[in-house]
Amino acid sequence: MALQLDSYFKTVDSLSGDFIERLRKAVAIPSISAEDERRGDVVKMGMFLKGELEKLGAHMEARPLGKQPHKEHLELPPAIIGRYPAEKDTSKRTILVYGHYDVQPANLSDGWATEPFELSVDDKDRMYGRGSTDDKGPVLGWVNVIEAHQKAGIEFPVNLLMCFEGMEEYGSEGLDDFIIKEAAKGGFFEDADACCISDNYWLGTEKPCLTYGLRGCSYYSIEVSGPGQDLHSGVFGGTAQEPMTDLFSVMSSLVDRDGNILIPGIKELVAPVTTEEQSLYKDIAFTMDNLYESLGSKTSIFDDKENTLMRRWRFPSLSLHGVEGAFSAPGAKTVIPAKVTGKFSIRTVPNMEPEDVDKLVFKYVKDVFDRLKSKNTLNVFLQHSGKWWVASPNHWNFTAAAKATEHVWGIKPDLTREGGSIPVTLTFEQATGKNVLLLPMGSSTDAAHSINEKLDKSNYIQGIKTLGSYLHYVAEEPIKAA
Amino acid sequence: MALQLDSYFKTVDSLSGDFIERLRKAVAIPSISAEDERRGDVVKMGMFLKGELEKLGAHMEARPLGKQPHKEHLELPPAIIGRYPAEKDTSKRTILVYGHYDVQPANLSDGWATEPFELSVDDKDRMYGRGSTDDKGPVLGWVNVIEAHQKAGIEFPVNLLMCFEGMEEYGSEGLDDFIIKEAAKGGFFEDADACCISDNYWLGTEKPCLTYGLRGCSYYSIEVSGPGQDLHSGVFGGTAQEPMTDLFSVMSSLVDRDGNILIPGIKELVAPVTTEEQSLYKDIAFTMDNLYESLGSKTSIFDDKENTLMRRWRFPSLSLHGVEGAFSAPGAKTVIPAKVTGKFSIRTVPNMEPEDVDKLVFKYVKDVFDRLKSKNTLNVFLQHSGKWWVASPNHWNFTAAAKATEHVWGIKPDLTREGGSIPVTLTFEQATGKNVLLLPMGSSTDAAHSINEKLDKSNYIQGIKTLGSYLHYVAEEPIKAA
Repeated sequence: MALQLDSYFKTVDSLSGDFIERLRKAVAIPSISAEDERRGDVVKMGMFLKGELEKLGAHMEARPLGKQPHKEHLELPPAIIGRYPAEKDTSKRTILVYGHYDVQPANLSDGWATEPFELSVDDKDRMYGRGSTDDKGPVLGWVNVIEAHQKAGIEFPVNLLMCFEGMEEYGSEGLDDFIIKEAAKGGFFEDADACCISDNYWLGTEKPCLTYGLRGCSYYSIEVSGPGQDLHSGVFGGTAQEPMTDLFSVMSSLVDRDGNILIPGIKELVAPVTTEEQSLYKDIAFTMDNLYESLGSKTSIFDDKENTLMRRWRFPSLSLHGVEGAFSAPGAKTVIPAKVTGKFSIRTVPNMEPEDVDKLVFKYVKDVFDRLKSKNTLNVFLQHSGKWWVASPNHWNFTAAAKATEHVWGIKPDLTREGGSIPVTLTFEQATGKNVLLLPMGSSTDAAHSINEKLDKSNYIQGIKTLGSYLHYVAEEPIKAA
Repeated sequence: MALQLDSYFKTVDSLSGDFIERLRKAVAIPSISAEDERRGDVVKMGMFLKGELEKLGAHMEARPLGKQPHKEHLELPPAIIGRYPAEKDTSKRTILVYGHYDVQPANLSDGWATEPFELSVDDKDRMYGRGSTDDKGPVLGWVNVIEAHQKAGIEFPVNLLMCFEGMEEYGSEGLDDFIIKEAAKGGFFEDADACCISDNYWLGTEKPCLTYGLRGCSYYSIEVSGPGQDLHSGVFGGTAQEPMTDLFSVMSSLVDRDGNILIPGIKELVAPVTTEEQSLYKDIAFTMDNLYESLGSKTSIFDDKENTLMRRWRFPSLSLHGVEGAFSAPGAKTVIPAKVTGKFSIRTVPNMEPEDVDKLVFKYVKDVFDRLKSKNTLNVFLQHSGKWWVASPNHWNFTAAAKATEHVWGIKPDLTREGGSIPVTLTFEQATGKNVLLLPMGSSTDAAHSINEKLDKSNYIQGIKTLGSYLHYVAEEPIKAA
């Protein structure tokens, strides 16, 4: 394999100009899934991707996902699925890869230094553009892997199944059911042996990582209402029980300054930390300075790396997000809002079952409100929830990715978890019953979702090498490691 | 005087059609001071008013007030001031009246049942239209008083000074300085003996009132900041001290469910209730059903009229208005806001000096925040304040208005205070050093500032009679009553 990879790496390097041009074409299509009027561009981007893969001989299909829920005049962009080589080689493992071809909104006026939909490479080889790192770079990574194998004349080491969606930045509408159907007997993804998703980021900027866990998220609303309409605080202040006062009482009882969740019973749901796990955190390439830099301040809860990483990855957290229905503009308005809805969410971890969390939240919020003895009316409900995910990092899927990463980058990758959610990860695990690996291409400074999103050229090109090597190591891993 | 008033009333009745037409013309001019593109209409309305008064022989001036602060491309609409009769009769008292010719914004799409800028009279003689009651009806009331005197051939009983502004609904920009200057020696308002403002409402719908007190308002912002930018709650939840958590802790410590202000020292600033004052409330034409109707609910703090009125008129209150910088839209967003600004205000009453209130608020908010021992940064500041106002209802100005009201409506008016603020009231009192009377024309159901604003035809026509009679009674009141 070593010789094959040498040849593959050289070919990737020689094609790097073409690969950047491919990314430039993709970034130029403003495939913003959240904006109705861009739906045509989202579809165009899906078709561009399908076309690139068909040119390389892959079998591709654009699968319709139906109308968009709550926007019935809009057709969802298709799932672009495919298989390479077009004919299955039953002697090889089958790897299902996922990515998305839609992007977050972006306008130059948001504060971008360059046109967001023109790839701009600066003198430090940082490639700026919306979607560069999230997720067009990684998605095209798979395309480039195929092309480089062809140009290098190397046999493709696995059967590659592909699933690329166009609604990831808008809740992956319609995708879950599709994956479940296609992963079942007779479906397109039926024969996947493992899954790989490249849609997250290194923990820092220097050291690659493999990610084996994500927190879940349960998002709640607390509605308090009373008066029939908004009131003038001059006329009614002091005579009406104000919904805002009740809401602030309840919301200030949820969490303390140090992020301790004050809802009884939550702590007890969390899996205890083992001695073995405890020892993992100290070697992770992460410093408090990394945290301070990304926070833009030193207002951290902990002053040490271990507690910080454990809180981010393996303990739950509760954040207050805002209030709907209250005055939210600059300036002064003397309104007593008639109905206010407070928003908060809990990041969940093993072994918190979302239904158990809901019950504890609802009971506590109602208890706190009942103790106020207010005449106003409270309603607390779940807006949405996605469960946490933790995979086994000892599976051959991870072992292969670790070997590939070390081969390309010369260093063993960190095994990390993440504080955020990528709900499709759990869907792939549950639908296929197979191991899922998160293999990031970009780094922590890529500013996905923000202005000036970028992908470093080295992360792109070395990432293409890593993805390709991963498939070679996958082909060689013994089955018993599973 | 009795014969004169009979003749005056008959003339008002006979001209009522003309007076409604005058109001129709005024309502048709969308003089919205808050909307830049309507500035021309505001000026047009001021000129219409000036023209109507000039046709009746008044001496009128349109006084420029300069550029609009923070919007230097806009000229403020002029103060329309005048004197009637044009030549001063030194044997008569001089009454300075105030009103405003601008209106709140209004769009049919806000939910109006009729076009807001077309006066629509329904089968119950309710005249709907933006500005009908606030404040075009009352302002035109003074014009109509003059016309009816001329048509009836009755000598005008006083010297009338007029001050009509076009920015009341946008903070009366530029007016305070103007009033102070013109009330000083040599100014246009120098010789006012008393002031009368018709820009508020009856407490209910049946019984007229005279208003002798208003609460003040001190509006505060509490800023809490920490991170350099908004954070993702998945990545940072549990590792950063969140400004929202701190803000909710602080804001939930300001006031309780029953409107009791929790800031130490505030209560001690409030003038004690005397036995005499205590006895005034039970006779006021107001019921708890009036309150429930205007609240649109039964979520009142008190179940009795006396406590409700005292809380509205003569005790301070504290209302939470909202949060700037947090998530405020429908739906779910997993943001940890980097900087949030909570807004609240305190309605102030005698003898609360605004500066004393500021000091107590700042100290308490800082103390509560300090006890949190948060790494975030707090800043608390006053956005604006207007002082409370209480006049002597025993002054001849009030006695005259009470006699006029009783003459027209057949019932002694209630002497009321209000929970809200009309800052110009205090300005007139302080600038002229004379008694100021609030003499409302409209009733509690007029929906000023809301959709479907209206003025009942009877309130308009009887109001014109009341304003005119008031001037006659003013002329007869002995000086000693002052």
